[in-house]
Amino acid sequence: MNRNIITRLSLYRSTVYRLKDMGINKVFSDNLGEAIGVTSAQVRKDFSLFGITGNRRGGYVVAELLEGIDSVLGKDSVQNVIITGCGKIGMALMDYPHFDREGIKVVAGFDIDPGKISTKGKIPVLPLSDMKGVIEENKVSTGILAVPEVAAQQLADLMIAAGINGILNFAPLNLRVPENIIVNSVNLVIELENINYFINHPVD
Amino acid sequence: MNRNIITRLSLYRSTVYRLKDMGINKVFSDNLGEAIGVTSAQVRKDFSLFGITGNRRGGYVVAELLEGIDSVLGKDSVQNVIITGCGKIGMALMDYPHFDREGIKVVAGFDIDPGKISTKGKIPVLPLSDMKGVIEENKVSTGILAVPEVAAQQLADLMIAAGINGILNFAPLNLRVPENIIVNSVNLVIELENINYFINHPVD
Repeated sequence: MNRNIITRLSLYRSTVYRLKDMGINKVFSDNLGEAIGVTSAQVRKDFSLFGITGNRRGGYVVAELLEGIDSVLGKDSVQNVIITGCGKIGMALMDYPHFDREGIKVVAGFDIDPGKISTKGKIPVLPLSDMKGVIEENKVSTGILAVPEVAAQQLADLMIAAGINGILNFAPLNLRVPENIIVNSVNLVIELENINYFINHPVD
Repeated sequence: MNRNIITRLSLYRSTVYRLKDMGINKVFSDNLGEAIGVTSAQVRKDFSLFGITGNRRGGYVVAELLEGIDSVLGKDSVQNVIITGCGKIGMALMDYPHFDREGIKVVAGFDIDPGKISTKGKIPVLPLSDMKGVIEENKVSTGILAVPEVAAQQLADLMIAAGINGILNFAPLNLRVPENIIVNSVNLVIELENINYFINHPVD
């Protein structure tokens, strides 16, 4: 399955939830296409790929649509995650208000620095040696990596050895991982360079 | 120009800088391809698109290559940015250690909350009313938006009215902006949903 399709499903989902909050019970592929910037044909094609069908005019019942998307994205159960690296970015993510609402639960943070270890906060910060146990106990398969570049590969290896199957990587480097491990990277420098380029080359 | 090509240029650049730090003066398209996960032909094609040429065997002089890439990406001058929203994520980004090294300078943060306004830190946190002046004075064209979802559209509009041409958006919604404004979004929930899907569907 293409990464972009799954990203679009997430975007449809967030739009449909907003419509539901507004008391709207039916939605058309045109509306969803407009909201996320694709054609209505694309919307119908994406849904039909996962066996989600609407009526003949491209209309969908909001409740059924959400059930279908949630099932594809695995949102019918909570996604437990850990955070490795409890510096400023890691700590900000621990408190990220949107995770809770979206069924994402940070079960623990991990840090190499003994000074950061604490079980007093809402989410405990634990030593690396506890990682394997926490992952097993909480059935965690996703880890967020928020450590400095120099430590990133080593801590990615450690997370994988402890049972992590997917990593959201904030360190600005290309992690080397086994083929079955999923890595998505958020590289803020590259995002800003990219914006800068397109500001300076508007006609491209 | 395609967004992916510019992202690859950023990745080449970071690899070549690392090689330079190691004292290496020549690099081949094969090496760069391996490092970022594309073919050597792709590397040569990307470079030639910007008039960067190597020798017949796909070799490049590191210093010349960096000069060429930096010029394309506009890295020959500092990119001044502002941050709107000085909560935990915004404050973490103010201190992000990789920005400095990469020629990205956060000149100020802005917040609606008077309790957060302070000029005591290394980077000042200012009221929204100062934004236009700071943008003009520092020739800022890029703004990072790190505010809650409910405030995001309004503050994006305000940044654009104050002179911002490109936004790195951390709020989980699709911003409505004029056609000439560049928006890149970092949506952490979608990244995690995406990882979750591919962990649960490894054969796709």
